[in-house]
Amino acid sequence: MSKERKIANAVIKRLPRYLRTLEEMEKEGIQRTSSAELSERIGFTASQIRQDLNHFGCFGQQGYGYTIADLKEEINNILGLNVKYKLVVIGCGRMGEAIANYAKSYEPQFIVNAMFDNDPGKIGSVFCGLPVLDTKWLGEYVQKNDIDIAVLTVPAESAQDIATTLKDAGIKGIWNFALTDLTGMGNIPVEDMHLSDSLRALTYHICNE
Amino acid sequence: MSKERKIANAVIKRLPRYLRTLEEMEKEGIQRTSSAELSERIGFTASQIRQDLNHFGCFGQQGYGYTIADLKEEINNILGLNVKYKLVVIGCGRMGEAIANYAKSYEPQFIVNAMFDNDPGKIGSVFCGLPVLDTKWLGEYVQKNDIDIAVLTVPAESAQDIATTLKDAGIKGIWNFALTDLTGMGNIPVEDMHLSDSLRALTYHICNE
Repeated sequence: MSKERKIANAVIKRLPRYLRTLEEMEKEGIQRTSSAELSERIGFTASQIRQDLNHFGCFGQQGYGYTIADLKEEINNILGLNVKYKLVVIGCGRMGEAIANYAKSYEPQFIVNAMFDNDPGKIGSVFCGLPVLDTKWLGEYVQKNDIDIAVLTVPAESAQDIATTLKDAGIKGIWNFALTDLTGMGNIPVEDMHLSDSLRALTYHICNE
Repeated sequence: MSKERKIANAVIKRLPRYLRTLEEMEKEGIQRTSSAELSERIGFTASQIRQDLNHFGCFGQQGYGYTIADLKEEINNILGLNVKYKLVVIGCGRMGEAIANYAKSYEPQFIVNAMFDNDPGKIGSVFCGLPVLDTKWLGEYVQKNDIDIAVLTVPAESAQDIATTLKDAGIKGIWNFALTDLTGMGNIPVEDMHLSDSLRALTYHICNE
């Protein structure tokens, strides 16, 4: 997709959810859908859905709706999912293992190349079927192997230094599970998965709903 | 906090981040802060921060700022973090293990009581120091033990049935790591941690920034 077709952030945030729903429907053997049906599954209004899909040139036909395969392909293209990505996971703890396993099992276009850790007891071993390398070689490895995405599952206190190394090595994006915010990343996108923030949002709603 | 003081959702979403930042500062031995300093660490503007904090009666003093301990306590109260929560984790896979371990290590007010699985090879064993119980007893267990939060780390196809069981058993909130959206939860808050949505938002930004 060219930059000229840049879509509002709020719309982009909804796209993965559309895609997930379309994938579920496809698994159920459904080939065609409507904004009304999508609305029922996703919870957004049908008019919101039509508006979102119009943004990238998907116009449902009256009484016919959308072809799921086409809609999926279009959203895949917009989200950059029509190419493969090379990943490294930094941190061989339980979360690192869970994420490496998740990518292997559910995300065929995301290829985990290696795991990294600074624990001498883990370096040189095989973890989730992947070699565990010393974090001190991370920058070099990322550069040489043209790694796209780094998954950070390290303690908060080491996350920023590692992120800076990754930036200098030309990483294209960071998926951050460390319990801290990264700074100074410039144009490199960082997608945070802050467990604490999510859990605390939940307790707020429990106490106030 | 009383319902009369209900705060806009956008503000609430920022509170866990404020809290995390304040906790980091406290660890560094800092006792007092200002909206300008918070702005530098969090990235929101100072005026946005002042406005947010004013919402719940925290007024910084000119040239003095905010006392971190007080601000933390106030945000803790609003987020419902001044009480303890009883959790169960459903799904003894790698993600279930990672989450149970996370709660144990980082979230002292969240007590994981038990793990659940439907794999006969796992039922009756001990996982992360917790008993693994049969998922068929989940509803009864939640009711009897007055469980507050259920963490769902099961495959997408079993998530909805389990969520319905939890709802009927009086669960107060669901932390959902299953790769699907739950429906029919009524007033029960559901906080989704959809790995796929997050990863796909990242690829979008990689391709478009």
